[in-house]
Amino acid sequence: MPKTYQIGTYLIEQLHRHGVENVFGIPGDYVLGFYDLMSRSDQVEVINTCDEQGAGFAADAYARIKGLGAVCVTYGVGGLKVTNTTAQAFAEKSPVIIISGAPGIREQENNPLLHHKIRDFGSQKKIFAEFTVASTVLDDPSIALQEIDRVIHAALKHKRPVYIELPRDMVFRESTHAHKHRHSDTTSDQNALKEAVGEAAAIINNAKSPVFLAGVEVHRFGLQNALIRLAEKTGIPVASTILAKSVIPDNLPCSLGIYEGATGLAEITEFVETSDCIIFLGAFLTDLNLGIYTAKIDATKSIYATSEKLTIHHHSYKNVFFPDFLHGLIDADIKHRQIEHPVPDKPKPFVAAAKTKITVKRLFERLNAFTTAADIVIADVGDALFAANDLYIHEATDFLSPAYYASLGFAVPAAIGTHYANPALRPIVLVGDGAFQMTGMELSTIARYGINAIVILLNNEGYSTERPMLDGPFNDVHLWHYCKLPEVLGAGISFLVETEQDLDSALDRARAYSAGFSLLEVKIAKNDRSPALNRLTSHLKKEVK
Amino acid sequence: MPKTYQIGTYLIEQLHRHGVENVFGIPGDYVLGFYDLMSRSDQVEVINTCDEQGAGFAADAYARIKGLGAVCVTYGVGGLKVTNTTAQAFAEKSPVIIISGAPGIREQENNPLLHHKIRDFGSQKKIFAEFTVASTVLDDPSIALQEIDRVIHAALKHKRPVYIELPRDMVFRESTHAHKHRHSDTTSDQNALKEAVGEAAAIINNAKSPVFLAGVEVHRFGLQNALIRLAEKTGIPVASTILAKSVIPDNLPCSLGIYEGATGLAEITEFVETSDCIIFLGAFLTDLNLGIYTAKIDATKSIYATSEKLTIHHHSYKNVFFPDFLHGLIDADIKHRQIEHPVPDKPKPFVAAAKTKITVKRLFERLNAFTTAADIVIADVGDALFAANDLYIHEATDFLSPAYYASLGFAVPAAIGTHYANPALRPIVLVGDGAFQMTGMELSTIARYGINAIVILLNNEGYSTERPMLDGPFNDVHLWHYCKLPEVLGAGISFLVETEQDLDSALDRARAYSAGFSLLEVKIAKNDRSPALNRLTSHLKKEVK
Repeated sequence: MPKTYQIGTYLIEQLHRHGVENVFGIPGDYVLGFYDLMSRSDQVEVINTCDEQGAGFAADAYARIKGLGAVCVTYGVGGLKVTNTTAQAFAEKSPVIIISGAPGIREQENNPLLHHKIRDFGSQKKIFAEFTVASTVLDDPSIALQEIDRVIHAALKHKRPVYIELPRDMVFRESTHAHKHRHSDTTSDQNALKEAVGEAAAIINNAKSPVFLAGVEVHRFGLQNALIRLAEKTGIPVASTILAKSVIPDNLPCSLGIYEGATGLAEITEFVETSDCIIFLGAFLTDLNLGIYTAKIDATKSIYATSEKLTIHHHSYKNVFFPDFLHGLIDADIKHRQIEHPVPDKPKPFVAAAKTKITVKRLFERLNAFTTAADIVIADVGDALFAANDLYIHEATDFLSPAYYASLGFAVPAAIGTHYANPALRPIVLVGDGAFQMTGMELSTIARYGINAIVILLNNEGYSTERPMLDGPFNDVHLWHYCKLPEVLGAGISFLVETEQDLDSALDRARAYSAGFSLLEVKIAKNDRSPALNRLTSHLKKEVK
Repeated sequence: MPKTYQIGTYLIEQLHRHGVENVFGIPGDYVLGFYDLMSRSDQVEVINTCDEQGAGFAADAYARIKGLGAVCVTYGVGGLKVTNTTAQAFAEKSPVIIISGAPGIREQENNPLLHHKIRDFGSQKKIFAEFTVASTVLDDPSIALQEIDRVIHAALKHKRPVYIELPRDMVFRESTHAHKHRHSDTTSDQNALKEAVGEAAAIINNAKSPVFLAGVEVHRFGLQNALIRLAEKTGIPVASTILAKSVIPDNLPCSLGIYEGATGLAEITEFVETSDCIIFLGAFLTDLNLGIYTAKIDATKSIYATSEKLTIHHHSYKNVFFPDFLHGLIDADIKHRQIEHPVPDKPKPFVAAAKTKITVKRLFERLNAFTTAADIVIADVGDALFAANDLYIHEATDFLSPAYYASLGFAVPAAIGTHYANPALRPIVLVGDGAFQMTGMELSTIARYGINAIVILLNNEGYSTERPMLDGPFNDVHLWHYCKLPEVLGAGISFLVETEQDLDSALDRARAYSAGFSLLEVKIAKNDRSPALNRLTSHLKKEVK
């Protein structure tokens, strides 16, 4: 039955309907009424972070796991602090709803100089247009509920952020019309779909060594199992981009590992680049995905399918929805075959050498023997990410990283988001000291809500990704005694890790501790780098000067 | 002699020419070459903060003191993290140059998916257009040097931020033309100036009880001494807005104190509002300046002069430069008179009661007996700011606060900027726990550079400004043991302050300690508020629901 709603109440109901049970943010006077409404609702729970930046990253991580996330902030001073996190969600296809309070419509009359005002009252919406796929200001009770439906649908369809501005005098306003949420579906042009799938199947059947290159949209559209079905049915192996890492477990026979141009392992690079038919599935040609354009891929031998476009060789199809295409391939008449291909190295048992200093390479070897299907590994930007190239994905081990937009400081707040998106997963955070000094104090939020994250802090005294490109004092950070942080926060446990044995025992104790966070400060030599980072920076270096 | 320059070198030379000796920021690969150039230059020094947000606030504070500031960041992930700090600088008229690295022009060809890219390579400049008065991308060596001159001139003229984007392959490119910096002056239309000053003088002479209301532009244009000369010559008293606090010392006979509508003291409000001639000098009619529009000011009795417009009663003058108008009034034939007016209460000697819990009111009474002309007080948003209404300005005590845009988290990073803008001033930071949890870890930067700031942290367990409007768990923050922070940072000293006597002794010891920062955690009862905040929130409350 259509009915009328208070605008704020309807927004909360729609969040809940689409699986958003936690909203991250910080209140302010322009959004306080809506915070009160949320906190009195049993449909969503508010999670307070220390800074809005942390809330933005948490909501992004939540959206990556749960399919939709939301951050709620006040106007201006809150909204502009999530511009960077929203740009990242836009670039990496994470459907986050940005809910911003605003001065009341009545207050905005005559354009007064209200606190938190940017240039004019339209500025914030205009800015968010650069990194959202839909936006609205809920200033009209006659269409506010439809507007909420419209922008949420856009987030779900495009897997990208949307912006909802809620003036404070509209939160409790009743809609003027009765309304009922209608589910909108995205559908394909059936004829175009049939033709595209048919053509693709024929090309694949004629190819000698086809390979799937799976990208981030397989995660976003929840197609991981469909991809495995497709690979198992056809026998075609699956490589993944670094942004999509964990899209397929490494122990499946069809798994190739990460393809990343010159940054990746030589045998995978060679296998993919000599293929006569690369089938891109939701993968984007970003610089990091392609090892800073060291990739040598011939488009004339490719089938390129994403939610944005479907191209076969040199022609494109319109109105073919990416999930439909992937399911179409499963149902298509593609022959099964045996293809010889490299497989990811199985983790070797780790034998800690008592007094041997820990290195990045050995840290990740140890982690490969540590992580389980009940963990989610979150790698921040820096060597934490590059080294993660060699992280083994057991069964359903999840992996998250901002491997395209690459904003430092994602991982600690992301652990908050992943916890609420799936409390059964234990967050394992890999973060460098530079990134930690940006947002690491969101450990406070982790402490506040009793999240049992394991935070592995790679302390190499600065921005180690930059040192090999061009070094100077600007790449140093102030040295913190990170292990003292549990004393500041009145929660958690910490370990100083200098040797392989320290690491062994700290990880064991962290695994056993579930009352709160564990922080491992891992001392890495200033010039120690993962093999993958060494390969990459030798390329980046050429561009700097 | 005109000559050619490398673009990066010319930019550094112009920063230095205009007094910018310190540039705040964090490097990234798109700006690394320019960082290297700066660090090898003897004209500017790079100051590394923990997060770009901290650098943005530091540069803003530097600009407020020094007349021009600069923040230098990488593209996207750096640029978008200073959108909020730049919006504040725009709103509060602080001339900050945002220098952002960017992918090289050569790399941008064919619009590839480079890391840190927003929607397209024009996005960041478009976003900054919302809160800058000029912007440029230095992508053309034939005009790059003129462009640098143009945008820096705009910053100096309008006292607002400007944006310079420097693609990384342009840093070391030689300009194609010889160039010589030309100083640009902003001048008034002499006839308009003469007419305006004449009319204003006549109105002032005919008024019974004229009053000056001095605003932030008196600071920005460096007119503090001119204002005092004008007040002393005419005998007309000077009230100041809260955003302009410290524009005139409280101990001068012409000083009235802060005018802020119902938020201010009743006798000042009455004096200003019953005046038959209010002369606004660089003051803006913001909600906080006007006590959330509780001010009752009659425009028909006003002379309103700012850099944006000059209005007398109901008509406006064009092309009259604000400083020229103020100097014109000094030279005009305005009679001297004796006007009875309220004066700020002189600080009383503070006698600490040993076991009496400290309150906000008593904290500020103690501070009034503590601060000297060699201090600069920086108040963050929250009760730290409202209470500062009653902070006594001795001689030249400086005072900084974001009292219009009101972004929490300004004060700690601002201490870094003020230190470099004027190392002779000792930063005294007043910050609430909510704001501290956003940016307080820039104490790390304060430690790194050995700045002797005194940080007074008002710990009242959350967002106390919001509690009286509408309270809930969303106004709580996690409780930190702030006094442990020196152990994390390996620097500084800390004090837990619960009683008046604790405060007394902690301030004395902080004053004597000059090797680094002092952190005073002052425990304030959750429901304790300054008198000014109580007056204000009773008004704000009405708007929330």
